[in-house]
Amino acid sequence: MFASRPAVHPVEAPPPTDPVEQPRGVLMKDLPGMPGTPGGLGLRLAQFVFAGIALSVMASTDDFPSVTSFCFLVAAAILQCLWSFSLAIVDIYALLVKRCLRNRRVVCLFAVGDGITAALTFSAACASSGITVLIDNDLDLCSENHCASFESATAMAFLSWFALSPSFLLNFWSMASG
Amino acid sequence: MFASRPAVHPVEAPPPTDPVEQPRGVLMKDLPGMPGTPGGLGLRLAQFVFAGIALSVMASTDDFPSVTSFCFLVAAAILQCLWSFSLAIVDIYALLVKRCLRNRRVVCLFAVGDGITAALTFSAACASSGITVLIDNDLDLCSENHCASFESATAMAFLSWFALSPSFLLNFWSMASG
Repeated sequence: MFASRPAVHPVEAPPPTDPVEQPRGVLMKDLPGMPGTPGGLGLRLAQFVFAGIALSVMASTDDFPSVTSFCFLVAAAILQCLWSFSLAIVDIYALLVKRCLRNRRVVCLFAVGDGITAALTFSAACASSGITVLIDNDLDLCSENHCASFESATAMAFLSWFALSPSFLLNFWSMASG
Repeated sequence: MFASRPAVHPVEAPPPTDPVEQPRGVLMKDLPGMPGTPGGLGLRLAQFVFAGIALSVMASTDDFPSVTSFCFLVAAAILQCLWSFSLAIVDIYALLVKRCLRNRRVVCLFAVGDGITAALTFSAACASSGITVLIDNDLDLCSENHCASFESATAMAFLSWFALSPSFLLNFWSMASG
């Protein structure tokens, strides 16, 4: 009679009376595109590929160091490549071991890093597009410059930013909704 | 003995057992800078003033229409002025009648509008800064151009964006945390 009897009487939790008080973050748990999902991995790979193309196209021209904005674009594309590649590896790891990357600190880190790289890539792309539009439309100097390379590198940087912004918004959303 | 006796027996709400199930959005309700608070009104007025200065300084130069990016900056500054002025009036109204602007649809509308205007203002400021850096540093053509006006207009556009981004982030946060 000395055997312990784990007599557990589960108490049912009362249903929430006010629908406003329900935590909304729970609904977002499995949204595609979040870190640790196949959609999130796809977004990271797209960012990496587009930033890599922008970097290689811009670096293939011989006169990009003469314009500050193009140097900034190259630097931003390098940072974007490194960041997206690291997070793609984290996503692949999370998918392989089937772990959920919903730790609050990790999501916060991802959101801040995404925000910084998104701002850098977008500003570099905008500055480069200002220069290319100036050279192409306003001054008509395309015969002396590599306009096609500059424009395609700028477009690739914009595409990389387009792939990055859903990651940032989803991370920020899940950080806010807890 | 027919006088009504308001015998109220307040029932104490049970304390939440699981801290994870607490809605996090409730904690953010009175954060300064949200729409309908004095901080939010201050942010709106700062955006309006900076965008107005950028617009007037850029429009005061006679050769801004020859560069596409500067025209884009003027257009973005006009849009920014209109948006910030409208929302400042909404904030003043909310402060006067002491209403809380925490309606979900209103916050969603504010967040989307803030996001669009922030992206436009930031891209215009980046494109203009690319041009001004090209003129000033790379080509040394400041003697023939209004470099000071261009640079101050660009700086004011950046300041307007700096004042806009907390509004956007707070609106997005309160939209996400419900």
